[in-house]
Amino acid sequence: MGRVSDLFAPETVAVVGATDREGAVGRAILENLRADFDGDVVPINPGQDELLGLECYPDVSSAPPVDLAVVVVPPPAVLEAIEDVGEAGTEHVVVITAGFAETGSEGARRERELRELADAYDLNVVGPNSLGIMSTPVGMNATFGPENAREGSISFMSQSGAFITAVLDWANEQGIGFRDVVSLGNKAVLDEGDFVDAWGADPDTDVVIGYLEGIDDGAEFVRTARDVTDETPIVLVKSGRTDAGAQAASSHTGAIAGSEQAYEAGLEQAGVLRAHSVQELFDTARALAGLPVPDGDGVAVVTNAGGPGVLTTDAVGDSYLEMATFTDETIDRLEAALPDEANVYNPIDALGDADTGRFATALEIVLEDPNVDSAIVVSAPTATLTYDRLAEVVIEAQQTHEKPVVTSLMGGQRARAAEEVLREFGIPNYFDPSRAVTGLDALARFRDVRRRERDEPETFDVDRDRAREILARADDRVDNRLGIESMDLLEAYGIPTPDGEVVDDPAHARELAETIDGDVVMKIVSPDISHKSDIGGVKIGVPDDEVEDAYEDLVSRARAYQPDARVLGVQVQELIDLEGTTETIVGMNRDPQFGPLLLFGLGGIFVEILEDTAVRVAPIGEDESRSMIEEIQATPLLRGARGRDPADVDGVVETIQRLSQLVTDFPQILELDVNPLVAGPDGVQAIDLRLTVDTETETETDD
Amino acid sequence: MGRVSDLFAPETVAVVGATDREGAVGRAILENLRADFDGDVVPINPGQDELLGLECYPDVSSAPPVDLAVVVVPPPAVLEAIEDVGEAGTEHVVVITAGFAETGSEGARRERELRELADAYDLNVVGPNSLGIMSTPVGMNATFGPENAREGSISFMSQSGAFITAVLDWANEQGIGFRDVVSLGNKAVLDEGDFVDAWGADPDTDVVIGYLEGIDDGAEFVRTARDVTDETPIVLVKSGRTDAGAQAASSHTGAIAGSEQAYEAGLEQAGVLRAHSVQELFDTARALAGLPVPDGDGVAVVTNAGGPGVLTTDAVGDSYLEMATFTDETIDRLEAALPDEANVYNPIDALGDADTGRFATALEIVLEDPNVDSAIVVSAPTATLTYDRLAEVVIEAQQTHEKPVVTSLMGGQRARAAEEVLREFGIPNYFDPSRAVTGLDALARFRDVRRRERDEPETFDVDRDRAREILARADDRVDNRLGIESMDLLEAYGIPTPDGEVVDDPAHARELAETIDGDVVMKIVSPDISHKSDIGGVKIGVPDDEVEDAYEDLVSRARAYQPDARVLGVQVQELIDLEGTTETIVGMNRDPQFGPLLLFGLGGIFVEILEDTAVRVAPIGEDESRSMIEEIQATPLLRGARGRDPADVDGVVETIQRLSQLVTDFPQILELDVNPLVAGPDGVQAIDLRLTVDTETETETDD
Repeated sequence: MGRVSDLFAPETVAVVGATDREGAVGRAILENLRADFDGDVVPINPGQDELLGLECYPDVSSAPPVDLAVVVVPPPAVLEAIEDVGEAGTEHVVVITAGFAETGSEGARRERELRELADAYDLNVVGPNSLGIMSTPVGMNATFGPENAREGSISFMSQSGAFITAVLDWANEQGIGFRDVVSLGNKAVLDEGDFVDAWGADPDTDVVIGYLEGIDDGAEFVRTARDVTDETPIVLVKSGRTDAGAQAASSHTGAIAGSEQAYEAGLEQAGVLRAHSVQELFDTARALAGLPVPDGDGVAVVTNAGGPGVLTTDAVGDSYLEMATFTDETIDRLEAALPDEANVYNPIDALGDADTGRFATALEIVLEDPNVDSAIVVSAPTATLTYDRLAEVVIEAQQTHEKPVVTSLMGGQRARAAEEVLREFGIPNYFDPSRAVTGLDALARFRDVRRRERDEPETFDVDRDRAREILARADDRVDNRLGIESMDLLEAYGIPTPDGEVVDDPAHARELAETIDGDVVMKIVSPDISHKSDIGGVKIGVPDDEVEDAYEDLVSRARAYQPDARVLGVQVQELIDLEGTTETIVGMNRDPQFGPLLLFGLGGIFVEILEDTAVRVAPIGEDESRSMIEEIQATPLLRGARGRDPADVDGVVETIQRLSQLVTDFPQILELDVNPLVAGPDGVQAIDLRLTVDTETETETDD
Repeated sequence: MGRVSDLFAPETVAVVGATDREGAVGRAILENLRADFDGDVVPINPGQDELLGLECYPDVSSAPPVDLAVVVVPPPAVLEAIEDVGEAGTEHVVVITAGFAETGSEGARRERELRELADAYDLNVVGPNSLGIMSTPVGMNATFGPENAREGSISFMSQSGAFITAVLDWANEQGIGFRDVVSLGNKAVLDEGDFVDAWGADPDTDVVIGYLEGIDDGAEFVRTARDVTDETPIVLVKSGRTDAGAQAASSHTGAIAGSEQAYEAGLEQAGVLRAHSVQELFDTARALAGLPVPDGDGVAVVTNAGGPGVLTTDAVGDSYLEMATFTDETIDRLEAALPDEANVYNPIDALGDADTGRFATALEIVLEDPNVDSAIVVSAPTATLTYDRLAEVVIEAQQTHEKPVVTSLMGGQRARAAEEVLREFGIPNYFDPSRAVTGLDALARFRDVRRRERDEPETFDVDRDRAREILARADDRVDNRLGIESMDLLEAYGIPTPDGEVVDDPAHARELAETIDGDVVMKIVSPDISHKSDIGGVKIGVPDDEVEDAYEDLVSRARAYQPDARVLGVQVQELIDLEGTTETIVGMNRDPQFGPLLLFGLGGIFVEILEDTAVRVAPIGEDESRSMIEEIQATPLLRGARGRDPADVDGVVETIQRLSQLVTDFPQILELDVNPLVAGPDGVQAIDLRLTVDTETETETDD
């Protein structure tokens, strides 16, 4: 199949289902294409010889060679049209027609067939149920929307066609330009990952933005996007974030929305920046499209207005950025250059009577300061200041110093002309200073995304065969669950557990206890009893000579609780000294879109009540594993807060990585909980384990 | 002194320091006034007979009666000018001139004298260092700014003049109108509280908004604003929220910014809505100015665009509001009225081919639903929809049903005309649907502010005389601190404490222990030892016959730790059973602006590491006290999470109220910590106490 990027650079476009009927979609597309497209437009309609002055053909096969076919025929005719396109050797298709998977089982069947045809002919298909695509470098508007885009360096994909039409009219007014635009429609063939990939390789796309309601293969998207964000920023609005929104999204697209936790983790790991509203999407995109990324987080604010300067400083305080601390030399130079009453500390208040010269001087001085990585020029309109000239000053300073500068030249009509000049040089102006900070903030975040090292998962030396055997035990278990009797699974993956085993008679229990130093912990082991403590099924600190009695007692408690409970035996375990340790939890559940999601948190109330957890898509390496620990609020407890000895954080980090490897090696593990994983100054120990296994899934081979 | 509201309704305005010199502030004000003001304008300048065609007088005393004098003479001449104004019987003055407290000690002296003159002549003074004031009903622009405001119902105060000029140009473009506008300047006489009070009584002010950098008398402002918000919404941007911002604010205004925690608590208690950016301030104000408040939180969303509908739903999910659940009748009616493919559940997707009639029908049906309290109409531009006609539909529906409706008719130029029509009927249109939710959200929040019951502090029957005597002990103490030896202070205010006393010899200790049930807790009492546990200064569970030895041991440990430590004795206390209890903390510190700030949280890591605390300005009643407990994240622990018995929450509530009374009765208490206040199923007990007393402050009288 042709390259996805070629979709946006055809020389000849056919409109299959073109018509001259007023109000018809087939006419709107033909007219939009005819208006600005640099290449040839070929209407396809068996009933016409000519349409709107263009020679018309009965099918693509009989037309001159076509690079891209836009299909707008009624639903039942779509498959036949695609076949014609495929036979003609055309590689790229946009299916505008709706009435596929979004409408029920008949449509879903038709969509499957469409996908099969695309496979058979090796076609790049956009849609179905798409508004169409645009590409401004070739003047192509292959949509039925009312507006064409202005030229720019933002490439834009949307799962909602209406989102595109809603945005374009506004973006044109704001002077925001695009390179390629695609309405993804039902994503039967090409999806968000394909476009991210194509635009990542396009040197003229400065930023990729998108509106998505769901990502079908989250894990794959994370891999693709991770590569792209090494060079090109991606900003996404992923709607359906809230419960109400997720429900609305799923009734809108007919797809399962997936869990927000998974999206949050996956997109973050992929280096994707998330926006939560249309405005934030474009405030961010405008900065990313036109400006260099800053080397550090220090921002200088230069203003003629104290109040807005303070507001800007607050917004910096809320952001990823920080107010730069000027060097002594900068302070000296500012003091010499500005009036006595001016504030020469950051934010610089150049006073209400500042003219463009004073702004130029202040900006020049601060941009030379090594502590300043970016700058924001904030101003109120005054009699002494001409915004148009201020714009020129800002442009010159930005270009000389190669540091990003954004502006908040506040005002309405008064700021328009200056805004236009700034825009030509890639500098976004924002009415609200806090939005200017949003723009700069995205640049700084993207810098850190780009600088990230690859966090390759480590491959530990583990005993996979043994693990596979242990997991096979789940075949015989209620709900396919395994518990503490399978702690050897953790051992097989090199995760420390207390000495101990499950035994099935009192004498064995005693023998075992005698081989273990000190008193022991004894727990009833039964697939029918999940809350052992509640029924008195756990005994802590049993001396060796009481082990046999304790065994009998545990079993009789289990029988009393549930007469037909299947008792596998009793676990006899080394008594771990919990003094000075912290309970943590490492868990995993499998997300339909993103696969295995790892969760880390401190035990008990921290996870259950405070919901203080960190989540990542597995597999992860050491950096991500460590970042999970840093992310939770309660992490100072592990680091030795309140006079405790610091716990073995490295041990926790390694345990998370080993569990990441385990759940990646065995896709049949559906859920897993190590709770608690006790972390103390001398190391970690997994004390308890529960997991659910999908006994239908084959284990992947080792090699 | 005349009413503050009369500042905005003068018949004659004098400009003291008027001139015809180009570029002078005195000319700008004269021209601004001459342009639109309904009343008479009188220039004052001893060197001129006439200015810009107006008869000029040498001073206010010799001019015809003047209601408002705007003073723009140079700083050294201001005081004389004010005297002249006072002698002439003019009651209202705006001082534009800068060079007062913001510039150093000379200016500060001048500002004090200005304040004295204002007192002497009973003058309402705005400023100094003010941009001026405006009032659109009389066409008065008594500022030197370049723009006059449009007429509207928003009254607007700002501590930054530049903020006003920056906003007005933009607001005029956006069609946002104002009633009164005031640039507060240095607030030497009139401050934010005076204007909030005046506008609260003004039936034509629908909403009060402000930009503030600091509030000098926070406690007084809270009382004033609390009264006003019973009727009129107040929305404030209080800058200096972040550390960096606070530093910038204090260097801008020369005032101490005060703690953000205090502002947050105080403004919330006053029912003030806070905005964090210029845009949020106006997004909120536009909704509050024009629409009725909704009865409940249920929102209906009606759209022709699935994607934007989902985004709107997400924004509702993030807000105070919730998506309304339609009644069965509504669903039936929608199903009958809309095409089969439409989504009749909330958000209603009326489909891309919806015309205004379909919108009208859907809107009509949902607004009749008792579960729907407000609605948002969201649309993308389409060929089948005319925004101007849609605007009419929305206006009619809103007026018929008296429920607030806001719109997000997305687009740029395409939406302008419709926006204008909607605006005339008080309906704000927002390009971004999430901003539409911000507007509606403010209406719902304000409804709850207005509905709030007065939370009058209860007056408990306490022993103030005894408390006063105990506090007097601090005179002799290092740093004026009191500790556990003063637990009787809590007893005097009816707060439960364990049985016990401080004794000063071993025999007394034993005698006391014998009167107490069971073993006792013994703690060294020394003003020089603050961390008793660290030096082994606490013994828990001492049997009666070991009390004497324990006494000696505690004293010798204290001596070993610090040979010259002053030992007041040993506290012998009932041993409280902590099993099943939760440690809480109630603290107080005094904020320079807001006075006593109460803090509540759970003990240990919850306050120290997780910073999970609730703060209020005292005095508070039962409702606020209870809300502090509800506000913290860890509150389920008190309510009986994880199988515990619920603690006596009412006891905690009452203890907070009694401490509120204590710190209000005795302003000399600078800081106080009850830590822990142990809460169990059977009640609460204060176990430890520390406080700092300002021994210079006189105790207020009892009556």
